[in-house]
Amino acid sequence: MPDKVVKVGLIGLGTVGGGVAQLLLEKQEVLSQRLGAPLLLAKAVDLDLARGRALGLPEGVCTADVNAVLDDPAIDIVVELIGGLEPARAFVLRALTAGKQVATANKALLAKHGVEIFAAAREHGVGVGFEASVAGGIPLIRSLRGGLAANRITRVLGILNGTCNYILSRMTSEGAEFGEVLRAAQDLGYAEADPTMDIAGHDTAHKLAIVAALVTGSQPELEAIPVEGITGVTPLDIRFAREFGYRIKLLAHLRNDNGAVEARVHPALVPQDHVLASVEGSFNAIHITGDWVDEVLLYGRGAGRRPTASAVVGDVVDLARDILAGCPGRVPGLGRAVADGGRLELAPINQAICQYYFRVMALDQPGVLAAVARALGEHNISIEAVTQKGRQSAGPVPVVMITHEARESDVAAALAKINALPVVAEPTVVIRRI
Amino acid sequence: MPDKVVKVGLIGLGTVGGGVAQLLLEKQEVLSQRLGAPLLLAKAVDLDLARGRALGLPEGVCTADVNAVLDDPAIDIVVELIGGLEPARAFVLRALTAGKQVATANKALLAKHGVEIFAAAREHGVGVGFEASVAGGIPLIRSLRGGLAANRITRVLGILNGTCNYILSRMTSEGAEFGEVLRAAQDLGYAEADPTMDIAGHDTAHKLAIVAALVTGSQPELEAIPVEGITGVTPLDIRFAREFGYRIKLLAHLRNDNGAVEARVHPALVPQDHVLASVEGSFNAIHITGDWVDEVLLYGRGAGRRPTASAVVGDVVDLARDILAGCPGRVPGLGRAVADGGRLELAPINQAICQYYFRVMALDQPGVLAAVARALGEHNISIEAVTQKGRQSAGPVPVVMITHEARESDVAAALAKINALPVVAEPTVVIRRI
Repeated sequence: MPDKVVKVGLIGLGTVGGGVAQLLLEKQEVLSQRLGAPLLLAKAVDLDLARGRALGLPEGVCTADVNAVLDDPAIDIVVELIGGLEPARAFVLRALTAGKQVATANKALLAKHGVEIFAAAREHGVGVGFEASVAGGIPLIRSLRGGLAANRITRVLGILNGTCNYILSRMTSEGAEFGEVLRAAQDLGYAEADPTMDIAGHDTAHKLAIVAALVTGSQPELEAIPVEGITGVTPLDIRFAREFGYRIKLLAHLRNDNGAVEARVHPALVPQDHVLASVEGSFNAIHITGDWVDEVLLYGRGAGRRPTASAVVGDVVDLARDILAGCPGRVPGLGRAVADGGRLELAPINQAICQYYFRVMALDQPGVLAAVARALGEHNISIEAVTQKGRQSAGPVPVVMITHEARESDVAAALAKINALPVVAEPTVVIRRI
Repeated sequence: MPDKVVKVGLIGLGTVGGGVAQLLLEKQEVLSQRLGAPLLLAKAVDLDLARGRALGLPEGVCTADVNAVLDDPAIDIVVELIGGLEPARAFVLRALTAGKQVATANKALLAKHGVEIFAAAREHGVGVGFEASVAGGIPLIRSLRGGLAANRITRVLGILNGTCNYILSRMTSEGAEFGEVLRAAQDLGYAEADPTMDIAGHDTAHKLAIVAALVTGSQPELEAIPVEGITGVTPLDIRFAREFGYRIKLLAHLRNDNGAVEARVHPALVPQDHVLASVEGSFNAIHITGDWVDEVLLYGRGAGRRPTASAVVGDVVDLARDILAGCPGRVPGLGRAVADGGRLELAPINQAICQYYFRVMALDQPGVLAAVARALGEHNISIEAVTQKGRQSAGPVPVVMITHEARESDVAAALAKINALPVVAEPTVVIRRI
């Protein structure tokens, strides 16, 4: 196709969409050299036309009418960057049905409707790029679809929310309270005015649902992923964890062993010498274990206008290569030519096995440790390390321990017993260890 | 192509080749599901036929005759894993000329003859996969060709030799001498009997030449890359570096600013809080800075049978996808549709600017620091930090300093003056800081 011009229609000129428009304009020449054909931002749709003017988009590119992209047969690639479920879902499905390639950063859409979207892409012989939907600029999706394709991925540990990692990093370095750091992060623009999606762990769960689908070939119900956020993390637990040699991070976990798949999101103790422990501030990272590749870590900016635009345009380049080489839909959404395996059943979390951190707040009386240890022992939980500090002021004192590996259901049962002990003054804090 | 079987011809059944054969056999079903067509190890060539038997390869697959792969029109993908320049070069060129796709882990071949090989692939409309040639199992090449394609890569810092990183890590943790750790590494099989290629930095330079080509689109002469190995690194410098807050790592450096490209290999001071500082043991990592993506780190196993085989088979999967989608040669070797830009001229190292670590061994006399500082000042080099320890025994004492940014040519001139000072008892040690 020597005279082919690859035409991009962009829907949404918000933070990321504006970045994509700017990047496509700024690098038009370099990208065209990569492709051997002009790559043109043909249409940019936003209800607020002032956004396009502010970006200095050429005359005739901006429109408030999404049909100018979806109904124009000359548009080859649709970039969806409006976010949310509807009308994003309808737009993406219309584009795929019209035989257009699609790039999107929409994690909520793919976590919820990935099965439908990938099936539509397969049916119409086109590709979907979604590198930007997980971990921003980090080349994760293509690594799972391509470079690591020979592996069974047995485990994924991800720091996938920059806001949470920023808050936990500052709580760790400054010994500050959660609420205080959150307010500072909001003032700096590092946290949303309504930070619930981030700090309650739901944003991380969306991304984990997408990663789980790529790893296993079938997609879990988003609601089936157990999620715990960081609002309950205290400077006291961060300090005790450090004494034991750990950092506390909000992690997405995936385990894929012996046919059972576990997926969950919660704060976790990460050993200080693990590479994930050194991921600080708003950075993201994904630690992947494969049966042949062993360990891989991918690290970078998980959000922000420029890194996310970098990932979206990386997808656009790949989709344009497919068009120019005459092979749209070359790689299926989840990287498998066989049809996707329907819904992924997750193993029940109460059967999960890991080590645990316990902080029991107990009256400073003889026999407390023995009583706690007995409750644990009755449920087959043994202790790896323990620390009990003398009284510094009136009130209960912390008894902190790390258990050996134990089953979640046993931990829940032991916890109920411990909290019912007369010497225990507050609900016990429990945090899993990776 | 519903009935297509993708046939692989493997040349070389050594450590990595044996791993690739094993992986292709072990995962035949899974890989075929990924591709939607059978992926078959059709031929495996090795002069030592016992190797194939030891791997349990099916009857008729093993042969000592390379022509059984290169002359068989049914072979779609040739995997070259014999290493070295010849006959690997001849085999790869014959395969490409015959219209076969090629995967290789051969860094020496690509560092030296990449221009010729990529041109041949372009001419014959086929693809070359070389993910395994740099950093083993880490998905680096495809990230540079694809995911980060929208970026101008301004800087790359790589820990690309596991043997060197293992030795430096143990020297750091144990305070041991280089020679002692090298011998231990050889006993454990972590270092070759002849470790020169690794410890003198040449292996790292080969990989840097390939990375430089991917970043810029044109390939440097291997001999034009300044290389310094780790044999001169001492426990004393490791200790002083740590006092100043640094680790010493053997790094591949690439800078790509304002049209000038710097590439070099040498030990360097890495700030303790930089992610590269926490890359320990035999792991590899590449830290990439792009104008849009900001920082990305890719980390994992840079060598070894299984991680390297994982990378090779990841390439085989990609090349097979191209065959099945009818688009062989979809992505050019260096990721650019325009013809490669010939030889890359490197900026002269004496114009490079960075911070420096100096360890001056001087007689314990008044005025030493002043004399050294004067020599530096005369060449526009100012000091950021300095430490001078009192005499612990007879003989010269170390005066250690970190400079502000300075030009390499100024440093060389100042160094000559410092070493000529009557109070300076030994040649001064200089290490660059990233």
